[in-house]
Amino acid sequence: MPPAPVVGILPAGPHNRITDVAGVRVGHTTRAQAGVQTGVTVVYPHADDLFCNKVPAGAAVINGFGKSLGLLQLQELGTIETPIALTNTFAVPIVAQAQIRQAIAANPKIGREWSTVNPLVLECNDGYLNDIQAMAVTETDYVDACAQAAVTFEQGSVGAGRGMSCFGLKGGIGSASRLARQEGGLAGTAPDYIVGALVLSNFGKLRNLRVNGELLGQSIKQRMARVAVPAYANETVNEPDKGSIIILLATDAPLDARQLRRLSMRAAAGLGRTGSSFGHGSGDIAIAFSTGMRVGQELGHEQTQVWPLHEQQLDPLFDAVAEATEQAIINALWAATAVTGRDGHTRLPVTDWLQD
Amino acid sequence: MPPAPVVGILPAGPHNRITDVAGVRVGHTTRAQAGVQTGVTVVYPHADDLFCNKVPAGAAVINGFGKSLGLLQLQELGTIETPIALTNTFAVPIVAQAQIRQAIAANPKIGREWSTVNPLVLECNDGYLNDIQAMAVTETDYVDACAQAAVTFEQGSVGAGRGMSCFGLKGGIGSASRLARQEGGLAGTAPDYIVGALVLSNFGKLRNLRVNGELLGQSIKQRMARVAVPAYANETVNEPDKGSIIILLATDAPLDARQLRRLSMRAAAGLGRTGSSFGHGSGDIAIAFSTGMRVGQELGHEQTQVWPLHEQQLDPLFDAVAEATEQAIINALWAATAVTGRDGHTRLPVTDWLQD
Amino acid sequence: MPPAPVVGILPAGPHNRITDVAGVRVGHTTRAQAGVQTGVTVVYPHADDLFCNKVPAGAAVINGFGKSLGLLQLQELGTIETPIALTNTFAVPIVAQAQIRQAIAANPKIGREWSTVNPLVLECNDGYLNDIQAMAVTETDYVDACAQAAVTFEQGSVGAGRGMSCFGLKGGIGSASRLARQEGGLAGTAPDYIVGALVLSNFGKLRNLRVNGELLGQSIKQRMARVAVPAYANETVNEPDKGSIIILLATDAPLDARQLRRLSMRAAAGLGRTGSSFGHGSGDIAIAFSTGMRVGQELGHEQTQVWPLHEQQLDPLFDAVAEATEQAIINALWAATAVTGRDGHTRLPVTDWLQD
Amino acid sequence: MPPAPVVGILPAGPHNRITDVAGVRVGHTTRAQAGVQTGVTVVYPHADDLFCNKVPAGAAVINGFGKSLGLLQLQELGTIETPIALTNTFAVPIVAQAQIRQAIAANPKIGREWSTVNPLVLECNDGYLNDIQAMAVTETDYVDACAQAAVTFEQGSVGAGRGMSCFGLKGGIGSASRLARQEGGLAGTAPDYIVGALVLSNFGKLRNLRVNGELLGQSIKQRMARVAVPAYANETVNEPDKGSIIILLATDAPLDARQLRRLSMRAAAGLGRTGSSFGHGSGDIAIAFSTGMRVGQELGHEQTQVWPLHEQQLDPLFDAVAEATEQAIINALWAATAVTGRDGHTRLPVTDWLQD
Repeated sequence: MPPAPVVGILPAGPHNRITDVAGVRVGHTTRAQAGVQTGVTVVYPHADDLFCNKVPAGAAVINGFGKSLGLLQLQELGTIETPIALTNTFAVPIVAQAQIRQAIAANPKIGREWSTVNPLVLECNDGYLNDIQAMAVTETDYVDACAQAAVTFEQGSVGAGRGMSCFGLKGGIGSASRLARQEGGLAGTAPDYIVGALVLSNFGKLRNLRVNGELLGQSIKQRMARVAVPAYANETVNEPDKGSIIILLATDAPLDARQLRRLSMRAAAGLGRTGSSFGHGSGDIAIAFSTGMRVGQELGHEQTQVWPLHEQQLDPLFDAVAEATEQAIINALWAATAVTGRDGHTRLPVTDWLQD
Repeated sequence: MPPAPVVGILPAGPHNRITDVAGVRVGHTTRAQAGVQTGVTVVYPHADDLFCNKVPAGAAVINGFGKSLGLLQLQELGTIETPIALTNTFAVPIVAQAQIRQAIAANPKIGREWSTVNPLVLECNDGYLNDIQAMAVTETDYVDACAQAAVTFEQGSVGAGRGMSCFGLKGGIGSASRLARQEGGLAGTAPDYIVGALVLSNFGKLRNLRVNGELLGQSIKQRMARVAVPAYANETVNEPDKGSIIILLATDAPLDARQLRRLSMRAAAGLGRTGSSFGHGSGDIAIAFSTGMRVGQELGHEQTQVWPLHEQQLDPLFDAVAEATEQAIINALWAATAVTGRDGHTRLPVTDWLQD
Repeated sequence: MPPAPVVGILPAGPHNRITDVAGVRVGHTTRAQAGVQTGVTVVYPHADDLFCNKVPAGAAVINGFGKSLGLLQLQELGTIETPIALTNTFAVPIVAQAQIRQAIAANPKIGREWSTVNPLVLECNDGYLNDIQAMAVTETDYVDACAQAAVTFEQGSVGAGRGMSCFGLKGGIGSASRLARQEGGLAGTAPDYIVGALVLSNFGKLRNLRVNGELLGQSIKQRMARVAVPAYANETVNEPDKGSIIILLATDAPLDARQLRRLSMRAAAGLGRTGSSFGHGSGDIAIAFSTGMRVGQELGHEQTQVWPLHEQQLDPLFDAVAEATEQAIINALWAATAVTGRDGHTRLPVTDWLQD
Repeated sequence: MPPAPVVGILPAGPHNRITDVAGVRVGHTTRAQAGVQTGVTVVYPHADDLFCNKVPAGAAVINGFGKSLGLLQLQELGTIETPIALTNTFAVPIVAQAQIRQAIAANPKIGREWSTVNPLVLECNDGYLNDIQAMAVTETDYVDACAQAAVTFEQGSVGAGRGMSCFGLKGGIGSASRLARQEGGLAGTAPDYIVGALVLSNFGKLRNLRVNGELLGQSIKQRMARVAVPAYANETVNEPDKGSIIILLATDAPLDARQLRRLSMRAAAGLGRTGSSFGHGSGDIAIAFSTGMRVGQELGHEQTQVWPLHEQQLDPLFDAVAEATEQAIINALWAATAVTGRDGHTRLPVTDWLQD
């Protein structure tokens, strides 16, 4: 498979993945059998109990046509207290239920002495390839994905990305990282930080796909016209974009919830560069969290006494978010493999269409 | 039982309930057995298929410490496309799952030719009386509540309100309505409209309870001190308020989503009048919808060609929202009956404490 | 003059004013001559240079029918970098201009080496009593108000409150404070904090005025009917509420911007208790700031290394905000004196109408 | 001067300007003398009285580090009631004052029988080229810009764009338009609409500039290094981005305020494509308005009885917004001419650096 194009001007981290942020781990459960082409992907901010050791977080709702669970409380309190789960739209409830059980098992005081737990499940609609009405995802699928969580993980047509489409091609899971250098005038005042991105890519129309500014979607459409690919022949201006993209951002820079909300908004810049204009039917949501700080559940719980960065130190992080997001989407496209699912629907990867 | 005090200066509708708004129906499923004291309440904006005939809606997140599902899309698109379901915090997933199945059964194109459906489930934490960890609510409970939907419905310790507490007393479901008169300078330009409220009341500390400005909570605390009620002896300033209140508002006035968001915000005025200061741990959320307009799912679907009210006509509706909300909370308290649940926990109704 | 009624259950600070928060000072310039009945009020969070020593802040837009300047940046960056100025709607520009000049004079790097300064000017429409079209406020009025800033200050028909109306009566400047006790379960973990409120009151319809739950507005309307007060004879349900209220909240509790936004939202509870339902035409805006933390302008500038309170410590502060806001409005009404202005328009104080 | 590169895949309108939307007019006042290099630009949505014939509007605060006036009310009420004015940061007050006087002159009931007027003034900081501390802009400058308003207007270093920088090069005013075709599955259901953009471009670091995906900023930096341009030699990663961009979007499609808010958010996609990651110090704000509907000031005033588009018709408009925004920024860069201002500071246009 040809390597994914590199976008932007910032250096990537050692693995060019969200797990370049120390402590972050990713796990998948992939369900691939006939019309069931779906799954669950889980992102762990760190290895300790998340309910007692929350991480600060912020979110940007770039387009709110989505059914995610957990953003309300995240936006009010500025913390994440479970692993972040990704899955298909109709599996949000079952995965949330699994998260609740998992949290209670770890902390039996939840819903009794302590308040309840806030599940955090985000989704895209994989209904083109996956029989989403079958509601095939189980609680076990979530538990299995958690058990698989590791620094090394697959990209493309795996986990929650199994059934996803992107720009009319095969989409799915992609990841990337970028260094945020605190150099120049501020030299010595702060170490380098890293930003990692993981996307669940399921958005866009082929005609809009841009890679490094090249109108690749237009070229591919012409190639497709020549070989008369039926699946793509009918794309029109008004074809509803029933997709979505979820963008998860991790950084080791100590940032508070307000700053992380600002960070998450910069995902929109990276997303726009790939050709998206945040389609009406696409639930485009970004969440950013910091591993550089922790918030205890109860008053006695340990709270990291680290001060957040000065606001003037954010620009390198903003640049890194935009680039890591764009790169993660490109990586999702290039890592994807062909999937045939419900009613024989097929999505081919971009790598099938790079040459005449 | 003594009648609930009347608050405010506006006239109520004929039944002083949300169902005074023509077309609105409410149904309950109550689960009351030993430690399981919980349930589901459903509100229907109208009797037609809601997915194809959406109603415009807006929401105010007064305090976002909540786990509701469906607000994201409601806020972006300004519509409701399922019945509104209320339940306990950990039952949100199972009820959402039931809503998805219900919508697919009615419209098999959902998740295939059409986009997916946005479940709308709101919650409070009834963990003091109810064994919330048991996750006892089932999909059937939701279906049963829908089947019970009617213009006449019970208030108090029923449906989703079964296990709820309010100001340290028994809370639950309450409802009220108020006329919004378009009189005076605008006479003749518009008919009267009505605003109905239904609340799931589960918030507040006893010491803060105010009824018509009287510090009733303070009086009751003194009475309790005299008879040494153990359950209330330990209330302190910092006792966490792990409650919440969900406020549903209906009106027949033709309003668009932006205007309904403005309407929903006025619930905060009514809530504040009862003594709430929107406690940290209380997920206080209001949703307002209009039965005076409809939005079709697909382009060909019927769309009500009614023009929304002029902005200067909103004040009577705002006043009605504040009063209906306050009255609905009072009605929930006065309609409630004693419930004993998990670990022998008991909540007594306010009506037990009105006299020495 | 009869003393203002006391509302709520929390103890007030020593002066029952916003200046009970150490460091806060308030100054007025009052312009009262014939049809010009207006002014400027200034609130200083502390005595040091505010641009270099910003305070964290948050804001709640309860109803956005207002023309304030400076909220955009306050909401993004979570800081205040000038004194907070209050004035009439059409004087916002001239006061903002004065703030810019004042900031440049103190810090000539502004707009050159450093970024520009964010003026913070909030307003109500005093056009009933004041000839607002005359645009009589000058830059000097702002400078004079700053020079008057002190711990002791007048309330009622002074400063920006000179021409304001409230519930159809004379409104204006009011202030109050409440102790936020960190007692009970958290005893010893935190000291008491104080919350101070200052309001510019210019909202409401007489019929809605409630004091301690008593429908005082209704009683006054009856008294007015008996003596045939022309100014009030024509109030109707739909009389446009062209008012507004600005609510400034100060606390010495160390809170970050996100927490202060939460705090500011609780002003809505206090406002609702006085009978307001946040009228369509009323720009109802609350700003909360903390004197317990500071944010430096540049990276080298001192930054207070104090950790914000744990979220579970906020409830006493929330209660204090609601009560201090309600009390400040009551204090504004009771401190007000009669004013006759433009075209002979007159507003009488509530104290003229307490008895038959 | 070489023509500006064309970006995107959608056809432009006849003049490739915001004035391709029928009724929209643009006027400039340019102030260029020694250290004063600034100005005012005005955009009229239509030729009738705007206060009585408001247009629906929505706004997206992409990054809120800005001092604009008027967004608060625009976001609450969803209308624009004055021309939209652009100027430098410290001229916001004087221009707002001019707008107030202009509105009163046209409608003497403002601030008397009617409510006050909401000035709408947006800004960027031109302090590098312009002596912004001089506060040189006058009310007359605004009046003159209004008088100049026409369908044909200049781009580049004119009006409010006179002193603006963009990607370290000369920025300023740019405009573009794109057709939003309602073809395909929806053929016949709606006519074509047009989206026009006008930007005040003052953001970005040179190293990030991308044109059609080409890293043009990187090439130019290399060219500059070879000729040792002092002004650019010191750019570092942490050079504060003290810029901003204001993006005004017009469309003839009938859209309500909620839909226009959605539209305005898509400006972020176009902005991101040019290399921006919405820098910390850059106030990035987009406003979209529709000429296809009108909202009367008073209840009796005419209100266009046009129904907004169905939500599924928005995608072509979203694509058009992203492309028109990107193109408008490119056009601003290519139309700009060199300006030397305060302290001999100079900004050279991109067209000086396209070749070795």
